[in-house]
Amino acid sequence: MSHNTFGHLFRVTTWGESHGPALGCVVDGCPPGVGLTAAEIQVWLDRRKPGQGKFVTQRREPDEVKILSGVFEDERTNGQVTTGTPISLLIENTDQRSKDYSEIAQAFRPGHADYAYFAKYGVRDYRGGGRSSARETAARVAAGAVARKILEGVTIRACLAQIGPHAIDRSRFDWAEVENNPFWSPDAAIVSVWEEHLETIRKAGSSTGAVVEVVAEGVPAGWGAPIYGKLDSELAAALMSINAAKGVEIGAGFASAAFTGEENADEMRMKDGRIAFLANNAGGVLGGISTGQPVVARVAFKPTSSILTPRQAVNEKGEEVDLRTKGRHDPCVGIRGVPVVEAMTACVLADAFLRHRAQTGGGAFTPGASGE
Amino acid sequence: MSHNTFGHLFRVTTWGESHGPALGCVVDGCPPGVGLTAAEIQVWLDRRKPGQGKFVTQRREPDEVKILSGVFEDERTNGQVTTGTPISLLIENTDQRSKDYSEIAQAFRPGHADYAYFAKYGVRDYRGGGRSSARETAARVAAGAVARKILEGVTIRACLAQIGPHAIDRSRFDWAEVENNPFWSPDAAIVSVWEEHLETIRKAGSSTGAVVEVVAEGVPAGWGAPIYGKLDSELAAALMSINAAKGVEIGAGFASAAFTGEENADEMRMKDGRIAFLANNAGGVLGGISTGQPVVARVAFKPTSSILTPRQAVNEKGEEVDLRTKGRHDPCVGIRGVPVVEAMTACVLADAFLRHRAQTGGGAFTPGASGE
Amino acid sequence: MSHNTFGHLFRVTTWGESHGPALGCVVDGCPPGVGLTAAEIQVWLDRRKPGQGKFVTQRREPDEVKILSGVFEDERTNGQVTTGTPISLLIENTDQRSKDYSEIAQAFRPGHADYAYFAKYGVRDYRGGGRSSARETAARVAAGAVARKILEGVTIRACLAQIGPHAIDRSRFDWAEVENNPFWSPDAAIVSVWEEHLETIRKAGSSTGAVVEVVAEGVPAGWGAPIYGKLDSELAAALMSINAAKGVEIGAGFASAAFTGEENADEMRMKDGRIAFLANNAGGVLGGISTGQPVVARVAFKPTSSILTPRQAVNEKGEEVDLRTKGRHDPCVGIRGVPVVEAMTACVLADAFLRHRAQTGGGAFTPGASGE
Amino acid sequence: MSHNTFGHLFRVTTWGESHGPALGCVVDGCPPGVGLTAAEIQVWLDRRKPGQGKFVTQRREPDEVKILSGVFEDERTNGQVTTGTPISLLIENTDQRSKDYSEIAQAFRPGHADYAYFAKYGVRDYRGGGRSSARETAARVAAGAVARKILEGVTIRACLAQIGPHAIDRSRFDWAEVENNPFWSPDAAIVSVWEEHLETIRKAGSSTGAVVEVVAEGVPAGWGAPIYGKLDSELAAALMSINAAKGVEIGAGFASAAFTGEENADEMRMKDGRIAFLANNAGGVLGGISTGQPVVARVAFKPTSSILTPRQAVNEKGEEVDLRTKGRHDPCVGIRGVPVVEAMTACVLADAFLRHRAQTGGGAFTPGASGE
Repeated sequence: MSHNTFGHLFRVTTWGESHGPALGCVVDGCPPGVGLTAAEIQVWLDRRKPGQGKFVTQRREPDEVKILSGVFEDERTNGQVTTGTPISLLIENTDQRSKDYSEIAQAFRPGHADYAYFAKYGVRDYRGGGRSSARETAARVAAGAVARKILEGVTIRACLAQIGPHAIDRSRFDWAEVENNPFWSPDAAIVSVWEEHLETIRKAGSSTGAVVEVVAEGVPAGWGAPIYGKLDSELAAALMSINAAKGVEIGAGFASAAFTGEENADEMRMKDGRIAFLANNAGGVLGGISTGQPVVARVAFKPTSSILTPRQAVNEKGEEVDLRTKGRHDPCVGIRGVPVVEAMTACVLADAFLRHRAQTGGGAFTPGASGE
Repeated sequence: MSHNTFGHLFRVTTWGESHGPALGCVVDGCPPGVGLTAAEIQVWLDRRKPGQGKFVTQRREPDEVKILSGVFEDERTNGQVTTGTPISLLIENTDQRSKDYSEIAQAFRPGHADYAYFAKYGVRDYRGGGRSSARETAARVAAGAVARKILEGVTIRACLAQIGPHAIDRSRFDWAEVENNPFWSPDAAIVSVWEEHLETIRKAGSSTGAVVEVVAEGVPAGWGAPIYGKLDSELAAALMSINAAKGVEIGAGFASAAFTGEENADEMRMKDGRIAFLANNAGGVLGGISTGQPVVARVAFKPTSSILTPRQAVNEKGEEVDLRTKGRHDPCVGIRGVPVVEAMTACVLADAFLRHRAQTGGGAFTPGASGE
Repeated sequence: MSHNTFGHLFRVTTWGESHGPALGCVVDGCPPGVGLTAAEIQVWLDRRKPGQGKFVTQRREPDEVKILSGVFEDERTNGQVTTGTPISLLIENTDQRSKDYSEIAQAFRPGHADYAYFAKYGVRDYRGGGRSSARETAARVAAGAVARKILEGVTIRACLAQIGPHAIDRSRFDWAEVENNPFWSPDAAIVSVWEEHLETIRKAGSSTGAVVEVVAEGVPAGWGAPIYGKLDSELAAALMSINAAKGVEIGAGFASAAFTGEENADEMRMKDGRIAFLANNAGGVLGGISTGQPVVARVAFKPTSSILTPRQAVNEKGEEVDLRTKGRHDPCVGIRGVPVVEAMTACVLADAFLRHRAQTGGGAFTPGASGE
Repeated sequence: MSHNTFGHLFRVTTWGESHGPALGCVVDGCPPGVGLTAAEIQVWLDRRKPGQGKFVTQRREPDEVKILSGVFEDERTNGQVTTGTPISLLIENTDQRSKDYSEIAQAFRPGHADYAYFAKYGVRDYRGGGRSSARETAARVAAGAVARKILEGVTIRACLAQIGPHAIDRSRFDWAEVENNPFWSPDAAIVSVWEEHLETIRKAGSSTGAVVEVVAEGVPAGWGAPIYGKLDSELAAALMSINAAKGVEIGAGFASAAFTGEENADEMRMKDGRIAFLANNAGGVLGGISTGQPVVARVAFKPTSSILTPRQAVNEKGEEVDLRTKGRHDPCVGIRGVPVVEAMTACVLADAFLRHRAQTGGGAFTPGASGE
C-alpha cells in the first residue's frame, strides 16, 4: 500500500478533497472484457450517498460517477466492457459550502486530522476536512463496484452490528432485514433501540461510534498468501484505512483471546466430497489463506468528533481556543461506513483473486481429488 | 506489502521454514552509518527465544544470528556500521525433530494452516508447520532490532494485557514490572492468576489466547500519511500478519464504538510551547498521521491449535481422521508474541520515518513557531 | 513500475485513451508547500502540443490542463501550493475524429500496437490507437512539469541529435540554438538538412526515425542507488516506456563498447575543493549513483508506422489485408518526443531525489570535508 | 524495482558484497510444484563462473549454490519441487584476497563506483568493490535459473555480438557456434580476431567493451503491458542494471532512427492459421506487449576501469592521486555478461508471464479463432 494507492494487482489510486472541484480514482489492473457501465457503479454510490435520512449528514451530493477511460464497446455483446487499461472514475463536488468552515480555518479540531496534517505538511485544505474528509470514500465505493464485477460467485455483504453500547442479538441475525431499515441492521428488533439512541444523540449535537460486520461468501479456498501477503493482513490494512476506523478483527477476533484451543479450532468433516468446517472462528482465513468458509471481519468506528459541545482546542498560532463544529455532520459515521467496508473488502478480494491466479493459475487443490 | 516482504522504504524480506536448514531475512533500505553488530540483534532474539520457561514451547534453539552483508568497519569510530546496502541476517535451525510430525504429514490439523496451504499450493512442507511456523517470527525480531537502531528517541515496549479471560487491572499498569515476570505483565498482581491459569491449561494439554499491547513513545508528530498510507493501517497490516493474530485495535479501539463524540475526542491545551493532549483515545494517530502522543495498539492472539485433545480433521485423501498434536508447543503463543509485536511496530515506525523524511524532509511543523 | 504507474515516491499514474472524453494523471508523493499553478504546467504542455508545424501531426488540441486536487492557497505567500496530497491533472480531448479510423477498426496495422493489444486483451479501443496513442504522453509532460518544481537547481534540457540518417555535428552543439528552430536542434547548420529531409518524407507520405538527447545539469552526487535502483536503470525504464522508443543509452553508451579502459574511465582532479571529472563518458552515473556531472542519456525513436504506402497486414478474422493509414500523423514522432523525454527525466530525478532523502537525509559526502 | 529487489510478481532480492562471507538472493512469488534442485541452478552458475580462461578474471570461486528454503519433496514424483514460499539461495565467498585492495581503500578509482558510493553513503566496503562488484551477478544468474524453470517452451540464449571495435558478421550468425568458443560468439570466423584483440588488451593491462545480444524464442503474444509496464521498458531496466551496462536496445534499436516507416514496420501475413511477421525490427514487442516473434535485445558494456595504466584520481581526503589497479580483473567484462543478460531476461519474462496470467488468465487471443 502506498499513500493514495491500495492493492497490488487490482490497484486503486484515489484523489480529491472535500471542497475541490471533484474527486475520483483510477482503477488499474482490471481484467479485460468485463462488462462495466457507469450505471452499475452508480448503484453502489447511491447506497453510500449522503442526505438520505436524518441520521446521516445533510450535505446533498448527487455523487454521479463518470467513466473517463478504460472501457469500450464490445462488438460481440453490444455492451460496454473493460479493455484492461486504467479506468478513470470522476465524481464532481457540487454542494460545497466553504463558508461553513471559516471559523476553523486556523484551528485544530479535537479528534480530527487537522493538527496531524498541519504538523506533517505545514499547509492543509481545511475546507470540510480537505483530503481527510469522508467524501474520499465515494471513490472507494466506486472502485469497489468495479471489483465486484470481477468477483463472480462471491457475495459481499456488510451490516451494522453495534451502535454506541447497543449490539445486535446474533440469534436474530437475518441478512434479509438489512435492506429494510436505514441502519443496515440484520436484527429487526434492535432498530427501534438504535433509532431512539440516535435521536437522543442527534438532539444533543453529539455523536456515537459503531461496529460494522462484513461477510464475503463464495470465496474459494486458496486466496491470500503466507506471511505479509496474508488475506487477513490485507483486510486489516484496507479496513483500518477507512476514516474513523479504530479496530479490525477477523472471525472470532478479540473474543478468541479468551478461548481455549478446544473452543477455538474449527473442526472438519467431509460433506459432499468437500471439506466442511463445523465452526468458523477463523473467519474463513487460516495462515493468511482463505479456507472456503465465509470471510468474516468487523470494524470499529469511533464517533465523529464534529459535535456541538464546545471542546478545548489549539490553533496554528499556538493559542488555546474553544471549538464547536457547526457544519452538517453524521451523528453516526458508522452507518455510512457499511457500503465503504463492503467496497474495501471487494477490492481486497479482487486483488487476492488476481494474485492467486498469477502464482498458481487460479485453481484450488481439493482433498481426495484424482491424481493426488 | 508483498507476500514475503513488508515495508516500503525500510523493507524486510523473510524466508525459511521451521525444519529447513535455516531461516532469515534481508533488510533493505536501512540508512548508512548506523552502528550495528550481531550482538545488538541477539539481545532481542534472546527475548523471543523458545525453551525459556515451562509456559513456552520446549523446542530449544540458540537462534544465533549472523550478519552476512550490509555492514562494514567505520574508520572514524572503529565500530561496525551499516553501509546502506542490504543487510542479510541468517539464523540456523538446529533443533528440528522431524519425526515428531510424521503422523500429520497427510492430515490437516484443525485451526492450522495445513489445509489452506494445501488448497493453494498442492504441496507443503508439513514439518513443524513449514513456512507457517512461528519460527518465522525470529526473522521479524531480528529485523526489528535493526529498525530500533534508526529510531533514535523512540521507545517501543509491549506487554501482555490479557491471558485467556484474565485481563490486567489498568490502575496497576507499571512498565517496570514487565521484566520481572515470565509473562511480560505490567500488572504484578495478576501474575499469580495467570500462572495458575496456564498451569491448568498446560496440564490439560490445552492452550489459551491472549492480548498484547504495544506502546511507542517519542514518535514525533507527522509520521504516517493520509488514506492508504495511514500509520494505523500499516500497523494493522503488520500486526495482523503475525501468526495467530485475529484482531488489532488502535487507541481506544473497539471500545470507542460505544463512546460519544464528547468522550472520544482528545482535547488539547498548550504546555511548554507544545500541544498537550488531555487524553489518548486516538492512540497517537489522527487521520493516519502521528500526533506526538504515544502510539498505542493491541493485538488479539488466538490459542494455538496444537493441543492434546483429539480433534475431528480431514486428510489429503479426503478421509475423516481424528488428530491430537503431540509435538512441543506453547500453551499460550501470545507470550512469545510480545517481542514480535514490538519488532513489527519498530519496522512500521522505521518505514514511516523514512517515508516522512522523503516527502517532507523529516521535520514537523509546530503551532506558533516563528515564521508561520 | 506498475502498468500505468511509474516512480516509487514521486509516483505518476496516467489514464486515458486517444478518443475518450479526457486523459490525465495523478501525481502522488509530491512534497508539500511547492508553488504550483495550472499555468506553470501549461507552459510545458504547450511545447509538446500538436498542430504546431507542418512536420508534426495536424491534430489540433488545446491540451488545456486542469488541477483537480492537491493544491491550496498558501496564506503566507498568497500563492497556490501543493498540500502533499495527490495532484489530479485532467486534459480534455476535443479534436477526436473517430471516423478517420473506421477502416482499421478490425485490422492490425503493421508496426502498431493493434495486434499486440488484441492478442493480450481480446478487445481494444481502436480509435486513434486508444491507450497506445502518443496522446498519453501529454499526461507525462504534465507530470514532468510538477517534477521540475521540486528539482530546484537542476536544469533538464533535451534536443534532437539525429533525424533519419542525419546526425548533428557535436562541434557545433549550442543549447541556445534549440529554441530557434522547430526541431529542437542544437546544431544550427543541420536545420536546413533536416527540413529538406522531412519535406521529402512528408510528401512521400512516409516517416522517419530520430534520436533525442537529454542532459540534466545540477544533479548532486549521490542520487540513485546500487543494483536494481540504479539511476541509469530507472532512466532506461522511463525513457524506453515512451511510445516508439527502441533504444536508450547513458553517457558514451553503445560507443563505449569499442573503447579501451583508458579511453572510457573519466579521470578526476580537484577543483575549487570539489571533484572535477576530465570527461563524462559515464554520463554522470557510476554504479547507478550520480557523480555530480551532468546526467546524459539518448533515446532512439523508430519512425511512426502510420504511412500512406499500403502495407501487408492481417485483421481480427485472420484475413490478409493491405492497409494504408490515412489519419493525421507525424512524419517524425521524435520531434514531439523531445518534451516527453525531458518530462520523464524530470520524473525519474524527482523520484531519485526523494528516495535519496529518505535513506540518507538528502545530503552528499564531499572528499576532504571536515570531520572525515 | 526497488533498490535491491527486481520484479513485481516473480521477485528477486539480492544481497552480499564481494568480500563478505557470502552473497545470495531470495526469489519470491515462484509458482508451486516446479521441480527445482541446486544442481539445476548450478549448471547456469558454472557458465558464469570466473577463473575459466585467460580472458576472464583469475579469481577462483566454486560458486556453489545452496537452497535454504522454498522447496520440498514431492510425494507424487519423488522429486524436489517449489512450495510457493520464498526460495533462499546462498553462495559462499571463498577466494577473497582483501590485501589486494589495501592501496585503494581511501581512493576513488576512475570509472568505478567508489566515489559515487562515498558521496551517497559516506561509508563503503572498498574490498573488491563491495556491493558494486560483479560478484553480485552470481545471485542474478541463480535467480535466472529459477525463472527458466517456469518458462516452459521459452528458449533464452545470449551471445557476444561485438568486442571492442570488432562486430560479428550477421550473415554467419549460428547459435550452434556459441558453445564452441570461449567468447559465446555465434560467428566462428570472428573468434580468432577477438582472441588476438583480447591478447593485446590483456598484455597491455588494458580492457575493452563489448555488446551482448539476447534472443528469447517461444514467448507467446500478449506478455507485457501498455505504458509503464512495457515489456521492453522492463527489459531495459533489468539489463541496464547489470554492472558496466551503458546502453540497451530492442529489435532494430538505434538503427531504427535512420529508417523510414516503410523499412521499419514489420508486415504481416497468415501462415498455418497464425500471424507470421515478415521481419522483426520490432524485436518481438509492439506497444510494450509481445507479438509472438522472438524478443531481441542488445546491451552495450563499457570496458572495466580496472587497468594497469596509472590514472588520475582523488581520495577521501580530497587529495589528487595516481592509481593503477593491481587486482585480478577481466579484460572484457562483457564476456561474463552473457549468462547474466540471459538470467535477467529470464527473470523479466517470468515476471511478465505471471503478470499476464494475473490480469487475463494467461491465454492469448488469436485472429480468426472461433467465437470471435
